[in-house]
Amino acid sequence: MGIVVQKYGGSSVADATSIKRVAQRIVATKKAGHDVVVVVSAMGDTTDELIDLANEVSPLPPGRELDMLLTAGERISMALLAMAIGNLGQEARSFTGSQAGVITDDAHGRAKIIDVTPGRLQDALTEGAIVIVAGFQGVSQTTKDITTLGRGGSDTTAVALAAALKADVCEIYTDVDGIFTADPRIEPRASRIPALSYEETLEMAANGAKILHLRCVEYARRNDMPIHVRSSFSEKQGTWVVAADQVARYLDNESTEGDTAMEQAIISGVAHDRSEAKITVVGVPDRVGEAAAILRALGDAQINIDMIVQNVSAAATALTDISFTLPRADGQTAMTALARLKDQVGFERLQYDDGVGKVSIIGAGMRSQPGITATFFEALAAAGVNIQMISTSEIRISVTVAESHVDAAVRAAHEAFGLGTDEVEAVVYGGTGR
Amino acid sequence: MGIVVQKYGGSSVADATSIKRVAQRIVATKKAGHDVVVVVSAMGDTTDELIDLANEVSPLPPGRELDMLLTAGERISMALLAMAIGNLGQEARSFTGSQAGVITDDAHGRAKIIDVTPGRLQDALTEGAIVIVAGFQGVSQTTKDITTLGRGGSDTTAVALAAALKADVCEIYTDVDGIFTADPRIEPRASRIPALSYEETLEMAANGAKILHLRCVEYARRNDMPIHVRSSFSEKQGTWVVAADQVARYLDNESTEGDTAMEQAIISGVAHDRSEAKITVVGVPDRVGEAAAILRALGDAQINIDMIVQNVSAAATALTDISFTLPRADGQTAMTALARLKDQVGFERLQYDDGVGKVSIIGAGMRSQPGITATFFEALAAAGVNIQMISTSEIRISVTVAESHVDAAVRAAHEAFGLGTDEVEAVVYGGTGR
Repeated sequence: MGIVVQKYGGSSVADATSIKRVAQRIVATKKAGHDVVVVVSAMGDTTDELIDLANEVSPLPPGRELDMLLTAGERISMALLAMAIGNLGQEARSFTGSQAGVITDDAHGRAKIIDVTPGRLQDALTEGAIVIVAGFQGVSQTTKDITTLGRGGSDTTAVALAAALKADVCEIYTDVDGIFTADPRIEPRASRIPALSYEETLEMAANGAKILHLRCVEYARRNDMPIHVRSSFSEKQGTWVVAADQVARYLDNESTEGDTAMEQAIISGVAHDRSEAKITVVGVPDRVGEAAAILRALGDAQINIDMIVQNVSAAATALTDISFTLPRADGQTAMTALARLKDQVGFERLQYDDGVGKVSIIGAGMRSQPGITATFFEALAAAGVNIQMISTSEIRISVTVAESHVDAAVRAAHEAFGLGTDEVEAVVYGGTGR
Repeated sequence: MGIVVQKYGGSSVADATSIKRVAQRIVATKKAGHDVVVVVSAMGDTTDELIDLANEVSPLPPGRELDMLLTAGERISMALLAMAIGNLGQEARSFTGSQAGVITDDAHGRAKIIDVTPGRLQDALTEGAIVIVAGFQGVSQTTKDITTLGRGGSDTTAVALAAALKADVCEIYTDVDGIFTADPRIEPRASRIPALSYEETLEMAANGAKILHLRCVEYARRNDMPIHVRSSFSEKQGTWVVAADQVARYLDNESTEGDTAMEQAIISGVAHDRSEAKITVVGVPDRVGEAAAILRALGDAQINIDMIVQNVSAAATALTDISFTLPRADGQTAMTALARLKDQVGFERLQYDDGVGKVSIIGAGMRSQPGITATFFEALAAAGVNIQMISTSEIRISVTVAESHVDAAVRAAHEAFGLGTDEVEAVVYGGTGR
């Protein structure tokens, strides 16, 4: 059998007991005949504690040194995990990102993987050892300094190693059973999605679902590496994230004997996001280049905007409004940058609203199905939810609504597309760390 | 001016406040015109906490993984120290042992440095940065795995880097003012020794003085690298450890204007050690090879014995007694190994005594002075101290006494050789960590 890459997050290795539990799972995989490569995050709150220490000695720690500091966290968890596996009678060897050949650019704190040269890992596998690799970290190709990959970094490490090692699968372990049709804290009838395409998962991740990080899915898509998101607390199948033309096969695998394969749902899931704010630039002269000037100012301030809507200008005034959403954390920076532009652009005023939420329906099936938008909006209307902004992609429809309407909108969409299950599963829809 | 290497132990970087204090000292050295390389240990109790974690997941952690785990400690302290220095407006770059070019053999937990290739450190110094290096760690030449140097490892790292970089001096910072003529907790009139030869310092270290580790002094001696042991809490001169023919010069430096140089004392200091036990093999047949068989059994059990004494055999019985001292921690192992030998050697019985202590007087001056032994033993007799065993080197005389007599023996020797000072300094004679 081939290579299996498994990634365990900080909550899976939070203490000695958790580490020993994870070790048993890893050894079981090895005993089933696989070569096993494990990517591990820092224990529980280690990273936050190290950041607190950094802030105690310096208000603005240099990125190089912050990366040196934070990478100590994985070093601790991976060594302990290797010891726990050793104690179960299997040899395990831990490797730092640098030792594992995770080569990055030199952008400290948000480095990108540019190459993976896993020679030492292959040697260890050949010699029969289980390989443990520190997630979230690499080494700069140019400076040879230690780097970190930023949020979602451990997931990305796992996928990158899986691709470089030509693994059969990259298993991402979490504390829930997989990716759900909606957040079960909002919609108790939400059900696990057996399989999703990379594209759908990207849309889910980009629109608020907190299971997988965007860059990890993007990396998997580029390398066609199947991801299996599953719980570290059970042996159940989770959610397979695979190429679009493979989704049906994974759904087939789950159909019980005698059943015909399930037909792929038109809508795979409902995502929501409460982390954004909305800014409206009111009374913008409807001239060529005004919108560009506004977007340039935001770009220069390093702000990623998400949805953007421009009204048709009122003929009488030749003034228009431009609204966009952005991360709430960037709200103050954006307002300052825009205020500086007031005289140049000549708009009337700025409105800031952080009482908004975004609800998205995602599904590859909507490509071939007319009427999806109508069904979605009718369901929202019936639930008394007012739509503020709309944005669409080929496989997604997103609306901005009042934050207080998010829960109702999620439930209405979930019901309208028949995503509910009758078995209510007791899960917590938690976020992943790094 | 040239390169200064400074080593700070765990108590000097125990928390954010201590780290900021040390950072100021380092920056002051840099501003005085030196290139500065700092070697740092893990913060306070970090190493012990990591060992506790290891023991929670595995009763016998593999050496490779234990080294991977423990080296996280220095990674944390060195990154924080670099940040604190950066916050004072000086650039500092931290380097792991591996990055610093500390090449070792592959004996995990007690690796020996076999080469130092500090190219990256030299580049950083050339670019004007302060260099921070993780103590206690290196990388194996053969396996490329991370290694640790064992006890005293950070001191050894500092001396090795100082030698490789051709530094002017290796400063070892501690919480006392230097090396003292005796432990001030026992002898309040003990005074700081301004300068000592490598050989005297080796004898002090080997015989219970806890300031510098044997291997670090040995490394300095081989490379003729001056060590300056001094307090991180004051600017005062500490103890210079230098080549024997340089000692007088460092003593000269301290003589106040107009004074003639102090004459080097015959005895430099009194060391004591309470960590040993004594085993006596009673009634050994006085035949060729019996002592060898006993020592071979201990060697095979990896036990380092210290003093060894064999009585002249009683003519009537042709039986002799062999006594030796060894670390108390090895007592049980040694007794077991010897018991297995009973029938083969045919001795009568084993006596184990852990109520012993060793008191040594050390001084290069004793080479040329007859009567030192007599003065020492007369002083012990006058203090009512009974001598159990005696061992000597060219510059040291050691005796084993009852543990309850150690303090009296130290004070008696200190007084007999005129080592007392009239200023009682308030110091704590603490041990160094790693």
